[in-house]
Amino acid sequence: MGLAKTPAPPYYAVIFTSSRNDGDYGYEAMAKEMVALAEQQPGFLGMESARDGSGFGVTVSYWESEEAIAAWKQHGRHRVAQQRGIQEWYQNFAARVCKVERDSGSVRGVWGAGSP
Amino acid sequence: MGLAKTPAPPYYAVIFTSSRNDGDYGYEAMAKEMVALAEQQPGFLGMESARDGSGFGVTVSYWESEEAIAAWKQHGRHRVAQQRGIQEWYQNFAARVCKVERDSGSVRGVWGAGSP
Repeated sequence: MGLAKTPAPPYYAVIFTSSRNDGDYGYEAMAKEMVALAEQQPGFLGMESARDGSGFGVTVSYWESEEAIAAWKQHGRHRVAQQRGIQEWYQNFAARVCKVERDSGSVRGVWGAGSP
Repeated sequence: MGLAKTPAPPYYAVIFTSSRNDGDYGYEAMAKEMVALAEQQPGFLGMESARDGSGFGVTVSYWESEEAIAAWKQHGRHRVAQQRGIQEWYQNFAARVCKVERDSGSVRGVWGAGSP
């Protein structure tokens, strides 16, 4: 997946962190479906995700507005995934909604853009 | 490392995403040192981190204030690590400074706290 090429701030981020249970139980297929579906949503700007060998993962999705985040949270298929996550896939998780104020690095495809 | 038990929002987050080069070159030792050092800084609230098998990683550190983030960025040993990251360890990276506005999940040690 790699780095997301997000626009100049401000925009919004959802930081989703989770510990997976052992076993797949349909998780990988749903995770792929959710990435593909999120990319089609209005206001979606990008996503960055990593999960380590212990099953702990951090996924950050970027959005134009809080309204776009709220709409995605309410999407019917995403609601199914959220419910299955709670019941079947995650030992625990946290979601944090943030306003991105500054950036740096190669975030905009330009090394050294921004200055946090 | 697992989930960070952060306080009720608002507070701040630095989302740091990076792709590692092949080979260690002192990276793992420095990464451990930076985690231990960050935990000692004023205003540090917690950290969540995962790196996958391809070398892509997402690390989020949480802070009480933008001032705490700025101070940590300027810390002498951290500046050494940043410079070595650019020169030796990362193919590319991005850092984003955010204000956390809402949370949910087991983020505060209580399942279902918050409501993003």
